[in-house]
Order: sequence, then structure tokens, then C-alpha cells
Amino acid sequence: MIQVCLSLLAKPNDTAARIETLQSLMLRVEAEPGLLACRLYVRADNPDAICYVEEWQTPDELNQQIRSSHYAQLISVMEEAAEPPDFRVSWVSDVKGLEYLSAVKETER
Amino acid sequence: MIQVCLSLLAKPNDTAARIETLQSLMLRVEAEPGLLACRLYVRADNPDAICYVEEWQTPDELNQQIRSSHYAQLISVMEEAAEPPDFRVSWVSDVKGLEYLSAVKETER
Repeated sequence: MIQVCLSLLAKPNDTAARIETLQSLMLRVEAEPGLLACRLYVRADNPDAICYVEEWQTPDELNQQIRSSHYAQLISVMEEAAEPPDFRVSWVSDVKGLEYLSAVKETER
Repeated sequence: MIQVCLSLLAKPNDTAARIETLQSLMLRVEAEPGLLACRLYVRADNPDAICYVEEWQTPDELNQQIRSSHYAQLISVMEEAAEPPDFRVSWVSDVKGLEYLSAVKETER
């Protein structure tokens, strides 16, 4: 799985517009093949700090998006940020759920 | 790097209390060795949907936390959720920044 995470600070009075743009982007991305999840958050302590997350099945599916109008729009959202945004692509090699907590605790015994 | 992501829906009128508990937890976690980042978000389309993220340098450092009172408190936050929460531990093998976008676009040429 490959995860994209864009964290940005919206300019004053511009947060609602940035969120609206990203939400309309999400509607289009959600129909794309290989998309596992797409979510939009704001920081609990700062509603102007936006975090946009996409999860893709494979790098090929993400790369196809990077060459599309979708990422052109994402880059224009970045350019509108109050500060240079943080953009990260993470390669996730393994994922575990709640069972991981029990497994770690058992090894303690 | 290892990432913990807890997504939960707070019960009606309980969001502020859950956020406060997680924020006080963050203050303690931030002083722990091996912690790279700790962030608290709410969904842009649903402020009762909370997302708590921790990033640890190594699994050993996370495992030590799992055996501590910190995770006992995190589990009690999960138990207070309106629905069974989503808890994920992700092993991140590689991270790239904005340069990844240019690199992908160049391979297109």
C-alpha cells in the first residue's frame, strides 16, 4: 500500500475554500481504480491546518494519478497555502490491527 | 518508521472530552524516546470523527509504549467510542517528498 499525505496551513479566511476544493477532488479520486481510501482532516488544535490523505493499492496506480489533472489541482492547492506545505508519499510494507496490542503484551509475560 | 493511527467516532456531546483526553496523552507521549510525531485530527466533514496519529522511529520504541499506562489510557478512549474504532499499526519502509512528483512526471517524457 502507498499513502499520500498533504499537510498544509490555509491562509486566513481561506480554509473553507481550500476544504471545498479538496472535497470536490476527493469525489473524483474516489472513482479511480486502485484507490483504497481518501480522507480530509483538520487539526484538532488548529482548524486552518488541513491534512489530506490518499491510500493507493500500488505505486503504479498512484503514478498514473500524478500524471493526471487530479495532481495538477492538488499542486495548485499547495501553492495557495500560507506556508510551504508538507507532502509525503509513504510506502507501507505491513499493517496490523488491534491484535498487535495483544501480541506485544503477551510477549511481556 | 512505524505509524499508529486510531480513528474513532465520539459519542454525541462527548467529542470535546475525548479530544481533551487525547491531548493530555499527547503531552506525555511527546516526551518519550523514539517518538517522531504525534498529531490529533478531526474529519473535515464530521468533527465527531477523531483521528489520533503517532509515529515512532522503531517497533521496539512503540512496543515499550504498548506495555505502558499510555496505551492503557488509549484503550480506554477506544472503549468510550460510539462504534468499534479503527486501530492500525503501519510499517513504513520508505518516505519521499515533493521530489517524487517531479520524478514520476519526468519518467513520462
